[in-house]
Amino acid sequence: MFAKEVYVRRRKTLIEKMREAGQSGLVLFIGNAEAPAQYKDNCYKWRQDSSWLYYWGLDEPLMAAVLSIDSGEEILFADDVEIDDIIWMGPQPSVESKAQSVGVSRHRPYGELAGWLQERVKGRPVHFLPPSRYFNTLKLQQLLPGEKPSEALIKAVISMRLIKEDIEVEALDAACDLGYEMHSVARDSIQMGIVEQEIVGKMEAIALAKGWGVSFPTILTQHGETLHNHGHAAVVEPGKLMVIDAGVESNEHYASDFTRTYPTSGKFTQKQREIYQIVCDCNNYAFSLTKPGVTYREVHLATARKMLEGLSALGLVKGDLDEMVAKGIAGLFQPHGLGHNMGLDVHDMEDLGENLVGYDPDQTRAKQLGLGSLRMARCLVPGHVITDEPGIYFIPALIEKFKKEGLGYDFVNYTKLEQYYDFGGIRLEDDVLITPTGARRLGHHRLPITPEEVEAAMAK
Amino acid sequence: MFAKEVYVRRRKTLIEKMREAGQSGLVLFIGNAEAPAQYKDNCYKWRQDSSWLYYWGLDEPLMAAVLSIDSGEEILFADDVEIDDIIWMGPQPSVESKAQSVGVSRHRPYGELAGWLQERVKGRPVHFLPPSRYFNTLKLQQLLPGEKPSEALIKAVISMRLIKEDIEVEALDAACDLGYEMHSVARDSIQMGIVEQEIVGKMEAIALAKGWGVSFPTILTQHGETLHNHGHAAVVEPGKLMVIDAGVESNEHYASDFTRTYPTSGKFTQKQREIYQIVCDCNNYAFSLTKPGVTYREVHLATARKMLEGLSALGLVKGDLDEMVAKGIAGLFQPHGLGHNMGLDVHDMEDLGENLVGYDPDQTRAKQLGLGSLRMARCLVPGHVITDEPGIYFIPALIEKFKKEGLGYDFVNYTKLEQYYDFGGIRLEDDVLITPTGARRLGHHRLPITPEEVEAAMAK
Repeated sequence: MFAKEVYVRRRKTLIEKMREAGQSGLVLFIGNAEAPAQYKDNCYKWRQDSSWLYYWGLDEPLMAAVLSIDSGEEILFADDVEIDDIIWMGPQPSVESKAQSVGVSRHRPYGELAGWLQERVKGRPVHFLPPSRYFNTLKLQQLLPGEKPSEALIKAVISMRLIKEDIEVEALDAACDLGYEMHSVARDSIQMGIVEQEIVGKMEAIALAKGWGVSFPTILTQHGETLHNHGHAAVVEPGKLMVIDAGVESNEHYASDFTRTYPTSGKFTQKQREIYQIVCDCNNYAFSLTKPGVTYREVHLATARKMLEGLSALGLVKGDLDEMVAKGIAGLFQPHGLGHNMGLDVHDMEDLGENLVGYDPDQTRAKQLGLGSLRMARCLVPGHVITDEPGIYFIPALIEKFKKEGLGYDFVNYTKLEQYYDFGGIRLEDDVLITPTGARRLGHHRLPITPEEVEAAMAK
Repeated sequence: MFAKEVYVRRRKTLIEKMREAGQSGLVLFIGNAEAPAQYKDNCYKWRQDSSWLYYWGLDEPLMAAVLSIDSGEEILFADDVEIDDIIWMGPQPSVESKAQSVGVSRHRPYGELAGWLQERVKGRPVHFLPPSRYFNTLKLQQLLPGEKPSEALIKAVISMRLIKEDIEVEALDAACDLGYEMHSVARDSIQMGIVEQEIVGKMEAIALAKGWGVSFPTILTQHGETLHNHGHAAVVEPGKLMVIDAGVESNEHYASDFTRTYPTSGKFTQKQREIYQIVCDCNNYAFSLTKPGVTYREVHLATARKMLEGLSALGLVKGDLDEMVAKGIAGLFQPHGLGHNMGLDVHDMEDLGENLVGYDPDQTRAKQLGLGSLRMARCLVPGHVITDEPGIYFIPALIEKFKKEGLGYDFVNYTKLEQYYDFGGIRLEDDVLITPTGARRLGHHRLPITPEEVEAAMAK
């Protein structure tokens, strides 16, 4: 948790932004409840709502708060613990002191929220964010049946959370340092004949020992061509490429998100190395273009061009690069976007709406495969934190679909592509802060990324 | 997943039980959806509903099934994956083959469930279990607004899941072996000056590397007197008692649940050893009484008497043991029950209702502190799997409350108790199967438990 002043300032700014947008009435924040895994007393690890953390800081279940745009009045709704709870949970600070720790002067019992709203709303608008969990959906149904989330509030919150404050950058650097450590353990744990799950256990131990846990379910697979592969039952085999896409969420709840791809045998084959080098070049090229004033959509497209250039040199595609970019040929190899925003959430604020978060008002999202999956297209501004994660995958089902539909026949060498049906996939991802003059990779160390660096690290 | 025949047999038995109970109509099962942690695409680790796993086996999100009590007809509602999903998730088996793998011959798209129910119910009763997650609550609101869970179904399911089959016992033994390994790592990781969280990371690595994960959020604390302590920010200090209450859920989703208490310095002080020995004796004594035909309520009370006997010898209580048991004096020291059922859930079937699961129809739950928290009171039957977990805690807030209310003045030596205000707590827990002739501790090894065994293990 940050100092009280941080939360006071943020809420003040939020009210100002709402007023500037011509809004009035109340802003309602609903914190998370525990999320039952099997029954109400056996829950997943506690995780507070990110926007709640941002404005109210208190990292505990069953809290709500109301902010008056009109008067600036703030009320925290939360319950003090009873003696029965003290037996189970130990002595707890009072709601009074919790409220004070984030600069809120008034509080009332959680159960009074519904009645309070009924009494005080009286036709005034109540702005709230889209529910990110089923609990919040239910709660909002009870409190404000039929009401819709407030786009004005969503936009105000996004405009603030998108530009990371210095204390947030520090927290992100720390999360990335933990992510570096976790990935190093993962790399050092790759070993022929063990089940992938064993590597996952070793690496996630770091996330749990030094952070909140993983910032998303770990992807660790010898089938990188399956983009969101969460099964870890396979045995590590020689000659494969292992994609490890994983991040740590720090105890302060800031995310990291790195991807590296390793040759399971410790050395790349010639064929693997050729594709790997293209992805590595794309990662570095994207970073070199990343600076204020450029849209990340442009960086995505320029990187797609670079990728096609590399694939062209290998004879997998042929023709005019710009034409191929325009026709979305790169999407056959990289059906995802170059990156996304990152912060308190690994895909920052995705609960508030992907397009509102990742697109400027004058941008519309493409439908094309690849570009259409780009989560962050905005014009870059200092304080943005994004990922840089190009990848090349050979997905037989997708290639066959393209082929059947007669797509890309002028450009794609489908015959040669068949030799890559068992190749798998490669993705290389760093986390990047936009600075006033350019960009900086987050964390104090960069994971080995060139083929030479990777082979050297694996030889240790 | 078990063989197809297991699920076919279980569903057949369930129908028979429902018929025997004079029920008709349909039984509706709703499998879990992914549980968003921050937004819909960043979810907690996938965990299927336990009753679903028991009857339908399929370990995937967004499935439902209907069983006709009248005709025996079975339908699985689930969706086949589309090409877009194949890009992200890889090639997937068809719903057809999934249904066949658990012996179900008919299936329809998930989205057709609501319409199908509307068309087919026509006034017939639809039996369903209480929702264990907010998603299921919402889903049931949509499908069957205003309808209540079926007590007949709850009772039929409990009667089956309560008695573990041989294949389940095998799975529980395996989960306990993993739990043993995890606890051994935890014990070996206790080290002065490190943050508790670091031990948690090391131990949970085992759960993740070899099982699904932990069967509940790990309790690891030098304040054992706080019964459900999930904070791990404290530094390991000399002279403390560390309670570690943790379990593994195996990849087959069966739980283990062990507790051990360690002297952080590796050796018990005289004062710690005295209390520890009482708890250890209580654990063994409870086990010695555990056999078919005895109620676990009786075992709880006999163990409470044993505990008071030990505390009496130390001068912390005095007076007639039976009178103290009757008056609930043991609850001041052990405000929880002796144990609970365990199986697919660590508190097995708690979502179906604690009292229906843990109490025979002729038993009513006490209100007394301690006994009132007993989750398993039933008359023991071969196949029951329960925990044996006595504990002694010195909870200043609770002792002060008793004192203020004038409770136990004839028995409790409040003056002497003050010397224990900084003692902490001790709990020792094993997992136990009721056999035809008595009981057996689950797992192939028992964690060191006598003070001598513990000190020897810590000296290694």
